[in-house]
Amino acid sequence: MTTEFTFTEQARHGSARICRGCWDQMHMPIPIGGPLALPFRALGITRSKMNPDICTICERSFQYVKKQRQITVDATILFADIRGFTDLSERIEAVRLSEIVSLFQDRCAQAIWAHDGIVNKQMGDGLMAIFNFPIIRKDHASAAIGAAREIQRNCAAALGGLTLDALPLGVGVGIHSGEVQIGEFSSFRSDFTAIGGVVNQAARLESQAAAGEILISAETAAKAPELAADAETRMLTLKGIEQPVQARVLVKR
Amino acid sequence: MTTEFTFTEQARHGSARICRGCWDQMHMPIPIGGPLALPFRALGITRSKMNPDICTICERSFQYVKKQRQITVDATILFADIRGFTDLSERIEAVRLSEIVSLFQDRCAQAIWAHDGIVNKQMGDGLMAIFNFPIIRKDHASAAIGAAREIQRNCAAALGGLTLDALPLGVGVGIHSGEVQIGEFSSFRSDFTAIGGVVNQAARLESQAAAGEILISAETAAKAPELAADAETRMLTLKGIEQPVQARVLVKR
Repeated sequence: MTTEFTFTEQARHGSARICRGCWDQMHMPIPIGGPLALPFRALGITRSKMNPDICTICERSFQYVKKQRQITVDATILFADIRGFTDLSERIEAVRLSEIVSLFQDRCAQAIWAHDGIVNKQMGDGLMAIFNFPIIRKDHASAAIGAAREIQRNCAAALGGLTLDALPLGVGVGIHSGEVQIGEFSSFRSDFTAIGGVVNQAARLESQAAAGEILISAETAAKAPELAADAETRMLTLKGIEQPVQARVLVKR
Repeated sequence: MTTEFTFTEQARHGSARICRGCWDQMHMPIPIGGPLALPFRALGITRSKMNPDICTICERSFQYVKKQRQITVDATILFADIRGFTDLSERIEAVRLSEIVSLFQDRCAQAIWAHDGIVNKQMGDGLMAIFNFPIIRKDHASAAIGAAREIQRNCAAALGGLTLDALPLGVGVGIHSGEVQIGEFSSFRSDFTAIGGVVNQAARLESQAAAGEILISAETAAKAPELAADAETRMLTLKGIEQPVQARVLVKR
């Protein structure tokens, strides 16, 4: 599926005038910016919390958009969290802790949106992002790696002053690419999510990433060879996965 | 805070006529059932996805409800997920996998709502529930244990026919009680969540629970001694927590 609209390339996150998800998925122009968006806003159709360049139709009406309960999508999944947060949460005061979580979530979201991903889930000091749905990005592996590098830069700047046992507070990122199931997997929620082995493996990779590291799977590296060329290779044993998994380690630069 | 309304005791989940969260937190009667709910529905105030006995004001307007950015609450946090899901997701077809996830999410939610908890986060084959906010339950530890037992029963019935390496597919649950921070911890989302060491330790306990097990912390057990009396004690080394942690193991009965 391609779009004839060139604005998508130039758009900054949050500046799209029509929903990029509805356009990419249905070729339907849903205004989300400018005066044409006003009547839609009155109907409750606004910018999505997952990404301000998509709308609440994309977010909450998956079955309307796709005419199916679930679809299989070749996508890239990114997990990120604050390393040592459990330890940190025992030591610092509550208000400071919540400031750190807010800083982390906001800086990560900016990085993910800048590369056309969506923040699908936020879980305390962690999050999950999807690349290639609903905004189509054929180069979703590269987009996710770009977002991860920006997450590391943004968070280093935002959290840089803070230390844990004299080490600077840092973020770990895990990325994996492949076929995921996207749909609504609960009868009482209306927001879509992604499930499947690829999602779980991305989460496992993230759990093994040290502060400042981005661990990408061999599958993601193969889709973005130019970005993984100088990356160290590391063999990992991941919970729930029988064979050792080869990962590539990207570090801050 | 006490409520003079006796309906709260008798209410079945999803049957409350006024929002139990707004009542418990603000003593404000917000109709969510019956004809009085109609004008509110027109304003977008409906039953919440987190628990049908609370409303979307509780869900999305934390700062309006509490007049603060965050509060400290003595609460019980429950995590549950499907054991071996990563392994499973590599082996079975996508449609079947999503049916299992939907069954799991729905059965867990019914159990949590029956004990006045809220399903705060759903993450694929896992979820996080909060007890004692916004519906006040002084016996939140007991409520969470009751929900966990019902989760195990419901899921055994729903997933019972399925096996993984000849073992029946099962669910692991982790529960911990203590002070958590509740608020909105991201500038672009409006739903509240809970963060803090207690939340992370509950997640760590869950990750150590085998299929069919409910691991509760010593703190939760102390708040519900009658429910933990016959439980085995297990010492655990949890990621990010220096000292070994004493947990009690409740199994299906």
